[in-house]
Amino acid sequence: LGISTLIANNVYDAAYPLHDLLYREWARYGVFYKFQPIDLIRKYFGEKIGLYFAWLGLYTEFLIPSSVVGIIVFLYGCITIESDIPSKEMCDQHNTFTMCPLCDKFCDYWNLSSACSTARASHLFDNPATVFFSIFMALWATMFLEQWKRLQMRLSYFWDLTGLDEEEVKFQVIEQTEHIIQCFCLKASIVIKLTCMYISLQITLTFSAVFGVIVYRITTSAALSFSTNETTRSNVRVTVTATAVIINLVVILILDEIYGAVAKWLTEIEVPKTEKTFEERLILKAFLLKFVNSYAPIFYVAFFKGRFVGRPGHYVYVFEGYRMEECAPGGCLMELCIQLSIIMLGKQLIQNNLFEIGIPKMKDERTEPKKMDTSQPKDPQQWDLDYTLEPFTGLTPEYMEMIIQFGFVTLFVASFPLAPLFALLNNIIEVRLDAKKFVTELRRPDTVRAKDIGIWYNILSGIGKLSVIINAFVIAVTSDFIPRLMYQYTYSQNGSMHGFINHTLSYFNVSHLKAGTQPENSPFAQNILFCRFKDYREPPWSQNQYEFSKQYWAVLSARLAFVILFQNLVMFLSILVDWMIPDIPKDISEQIKKEKSVLVDFFLKEEHEKLKLVESFITHDKRKHKSGAEDQRIRAASLSQFNQSQKGSIASFSSQHTVV
Amino acid sequence: LGISTLIANNVYDAAYPLHDLLYREWARYGVFYKFQPIDLIRKYFGEKIGLYFAWLGLYTEFLIPSSVVGIIVFLYGCITIESDIPSKEMCDQHNTFTMCPLCDKFCDYWNLSSACSTARASHLFDNPATVFFSIFMALWATMFLEQWKRLQMRLSYFWDLTGLDEEEVKFQVIEQTEHIIQCFCLKASIVIKLTCMYISLQITLTFSAVFGVIVYRITTSAALSFSTNETTRSNVRVTVTATAVIINLVVILILDEIYGAVAKWLTEIEVPKTEKTFEERLILKAFLLKFVNSYAPIFYVAFFKGRFVGRPGHYVYVFEGYRMEECAPGGCLMELCIQLSIIMLGKQLIQNNLFEIGIPKMKDERTEPKKMDTSQPKDPQQWDLDYTLEPFTGLTPEYMEMIIQFGFVTLFVASFPLAPLFALLNNIIEVRLDAKKFVTELRRPDTVRAKDIGIWYNILSGIGKLSVIINAFVIAVTSDFIPRLMYQYTYSQNGSMHGFINHTLSYFNVSHLKAGTQPENSPFAQNILFCRFKDYREPPWSQNQYEFSKQYWAVLSARLAFVILFQNLVMFLSILVDWMIPDIPKDISEQIKKEKSVLVDFFLKEEHEKLKLVESFITHDKRKHKSGAEDQRIRAASLSQFNQSQKGSIASFSSQHTVV
Repeated sequence: LGISTLIANNVYDAAYPLHDLLYREWARYGVFYKFQPIDLIRKYFGEKIGLYFAWLGLYTEFLIPSSVVGIIVFLYGCITIESDIPSKEMCDQHNTFTMCPLCDKFCDYWNLSSACSTARASHLFDNPATVFFSIFMALWATMFLEQWKRLQMRLSYFWDLTGLDEEEVKFQVIEQTEHIIQCFCLKASIVIKLTCMYISLQITLTFSAVFGVIVYRITTSAALSFSTNETTRSNVRVTVTATAVIINLVVILILDEIYGAVAKWLTEIEVPKTEKTFEERLILKAFLLKFVNSYAPIFYVAFFKGRFVGRPGHYVYVFEGYRMEECAPGGCLMELCIQLSIIMLGKQLIQNNLFEIGIPKMKDERTEPKKMDTSQPKDPQQWDLDYTLEPFTGLTPEYMEMIIQFGFVTLFVASFPLAPLFALLNNIIEVRLDAKKFVTELRRPDTVRAKDIGIWYNILSGIGKLSVIINAFVIAVTSDFIPRLMYQYTYSQNGSMHGFINHTLSYFNVSHLKAGTQPENSPFAQNILFCRFKDYREPPWSQNQYEFSKQYWAVLSARLAFVILFQNLVMFLSILVDWMIPDIPKDISEQIKKEKSVLVDFFLKEEHEKLKLVESFITHDKRKHKSGAEDQRIRAASLSQFNQSQKGSIASFSSQHTVV
Repeated sequence: LGISTLIANNVYDAAYPLHDLLYREWARYGVFYKFQPIDLIRKYFGEKIGLYFAWLGLYTEFLIPSSVVGIIVFLYGCITIESDIPSKEMCDQHNTFTMCPLCDKFCDYWNLSSACSTARASHLFDNPATVFFSIFMALWATMFLEQWKRLQMRLSYFWDLTGLDEEEVKFQVIEQTEHIIQCFCLKASIVIKLTCMYISLQITLTFSAVFGVIVYRITTSAALSFSTNETTRSNVRVTVTATAVIINLVVILILDEIYGAVAKWLTEIEVPKTEKTFEERLILKAFLLKFVNSYAPIFYVAFFKGRFVGRPGHYVYVFEGYRMEECAPGGCLMELCIQLSIIMLGKQLIQNNLFEIGIPKMKDERTEPKKMDTSQPKDPQQWDLDYTLEPFTGLTPEYMEMIIQFGFVTLFVASFPLAPLFALLNNIIEVRLDAKKFVTELRRPDTVRAKDIGIWYNILSGIGKLSVIINAFVIAVTSDFIPRLMYQYTYSQNGSMHGFINHTLSYFNVSHLKAGTQPENSPFAQNILFCRFKDYREPPWSQNQYEFSKQYWAVLSARLAFVILFQNLVMFLSILVDWMIPDIPKDISEQIKKEKSVLVDFFLKEEHEKLKLVESFITHDKRKHKSGAEDQRIRAASLSQFNQSQKGSIASFSSQHTVV
């Protein structure tokens, strides 16, 4: 009967619920190359989830061009690596630079050519194309936000959301547990104080974690350099960096989970009035905490590491005799790049694979045998199965993951042009993974209408703005771009890069090393007078020995001038892009206008017909009874009054009616 | 009869048209302290003009706090002038600095103490309070724009403009004269090329005018310094500066008139499709031209003057032997301040008093006798009088004047904290002057509806953004704020400002002056070895003599760092202010929401009543005729169909209805 009869009669080939259709067309890895069936998703899950997947889809699409440009920039680095004079000079054995020891007493003087491979690798990410790429990515972010505004407008038109006033959708006071009602009695000021206290406590916790890892790095590298084993000592840097980044990653993953819970608890004790304000406050708090957590170690490497080292003979010491850590000879940019790639990839792999695939699988396997037991009675199977599914707990974690990724793609893109590629690869999986989760692993969520993605848009646009200034600083301060440029156009004799390495290294008179910090058992010690270190300082034979040299200040000026130029140029271009792309697609705005006039016409026509209908009754009445004039007059008067009020309401309707 | 009978019966005391009421309550200088009767203005002149006066009123109100703060900042300068060590040191006769001559051959060495008064005066505008004031003004501009958005929203609610779709208001192709229709045939690309060409031509014209004045200044000061008259020579700088600024002012006033006409002509040949696009394009072009025209000389003084002078012994020469001009010894900020105040005040006085009061008065007087002649027949007097009035030509010149003034108030406020005060004084007159013009001197304009002030808002917000970066540069580069700070915290021996003047002056060995450029007949020449000049350069006894010194680069770094810090801090605060003040006032948004639900209720009630009415007809029908069942059924069917369609339309209405 019904659909099955039709199938039996070959009217239809097959029939299955929307659920299964969604699974076939959307929630499989096999269809990764296809656009998502957004309208179906919206029909099944509601507008809010539909908007999330539409946003995720657009973001993933936008990652394609940026990945391509990122790969080109990376390839440019690979191709020009052979023609890069500074790294060539560094590898050149004839041109030896004897560097000052990297640690007190146990480290020896060393040859700069031993850092040759790092220098070559860092050229991959530290070349002029990166400057172009970070301008490109800033404009990309603006363009993405603009296109999203347009897509959102289009969806909200086709999904009939233009008139939706979200605040009216839900007005639900959260009062689930006792302790909340108890907190109700707390004064608002106490809640705010508590919130501020907790947030600062959490941020302090993050900073201490970062600091802890720094201390770990300093002490371990010091400890390892005492080692008598030659191979241990030569691999100190690699060992320490690798372990430290992994510790960072683990700390981030753990704190991430804690912070999510803390933010939720904090928002609950605030007792916000509506679902919407609850969500917004939760998101803001969670975002603040997770942002600091994810980026603190990266910020440290980008802007602070190696900047408070002091100089040979006058190092900065922490904790009784531990020297502050320096960047690798290839520059801090290389380390930033390693840090970024490991944290980004690790976070994605672990959070996606372990938390989103692995743990549900494990749970599945554990519940599998149970299911087999209860599957004896055939009928109740489906709802029992559905009951075992996890409940839906909101889109916040999904958005949060993507926004943090958006940060990796935009904030430090100057140091890691492959970030968009990794994000793209992750997202192609992520879309289908989320789809699978929604279709097969979660109970079907209540549909919620939503006009836009809410506060996430503001967060995205904030990240976009922040990325401009951060990229400006990464290029100007962390990379060697400005010193190279300065050397080529100001200090170089013949406009070439020959002699750049020599120019960036200052001299140090080894006899000025403090007693007890000289290298022990050094084969060099007898032969050398001066060792070199990377900084712009006056040579030992100058009057103001070891003070910052004129070059230092000139290069610093150039760096800062670059920041100003870059920031204002990119901001200007962003405003231009924003201004040139209209927020509402032209076809939609025309459609809305047309519809509005059709609607007004329709109302007027309706009125006209109504009038006619009523009149026809009256004439009908009249024709049949010539008597009853009194009765008739009353009716006519009430009718005319009715018509007037009707017209009034149309007038007020058309004046109030608004097109966004 | 009518109103006059009522007055005679003492029901009313008096009666007069809205016109006269407006004159009494609004268009008189006597009521300058009162709020404007915006609703009356809107009723008489329409929404567009109402919005202009509302905007002007809000702007004038906002000028009050900024004037007060500006006066306080200025007073702070006056009070601390005695305790300012650098200007004191400069005036101190014992501490003589012999400065290098200001021109070749004819100028002598001079004592820095002779510039004492300028230095003291420049302290009035160049003190730490100015930094605070320019941050204040940047936030003030943001706050003003936010408050305007709110006021606009409020007005558009009370004036029933929320539903207004402006593009539908007018669709009028401009085709007045033959040459336009002829231009119609020109291809669009030619028009665009022509426009670009003309605009660049005009901008070139402005720059040549500025350059011309510079040349005038250089040559005149050279010519005057040849003079044998002692008093002429001592007043060279004052004479030249004063005349040059006046020439600048005259050029600005003349070009302003030309540019207005050119912009209009250019937009006419573009043949835009609607009145609105016509206006927007005209405004953009006129604004671009007038902006460049008004600010080019000020930009020159702020950022370029005195920066390409060269140094003693190696001056930069233009036109065979004329040296580039330097700033006065008190610094360029003082000159910027003079330039700003003269151009701002001159523009306001001349454009207001001469163009807006004087010329209409003169015309009035010329038409007065005519009126006396034609006033014999009593009846046609009023419309004859009205016919002699000028026609209304749009609000663009009024807005333009105010926007250029807004630029003076925000863009360079760091160098002239009294600008808001002058603007306030001007605007108190301007409001009533414009009012008078609209009420008594112009024919009553056609009322035009408008939802907002259109493109002017974007221009204002653009000026606000630009002001942040310009003020940052004025403080960092033009003023002596950063060098003072640097000296106090880095170079000074005891943390005081003693010795600052000496620190900013470099040494020059007079024997290095090129032959023929030494001062003739100098009484000093025999006794001195070194003269001083204001710059950070290596002394003659250094290895790299006269190169930029380390201090130069260090100070430059500090200046640029300040720009970055200032810009980002102010931008962050502006975003915060923008975010914290909601665009729609709370009472209005609640009112709109309430109204919407009332409207929906009303429609539903209407439907219900309609249904009842129709049903009563049917029962009425039925009661009177038990027969005619066939007829009855048809009618009932059509009625239920009608009801259905009616409900459908309400549903679509409520889903389409939008609140901005």
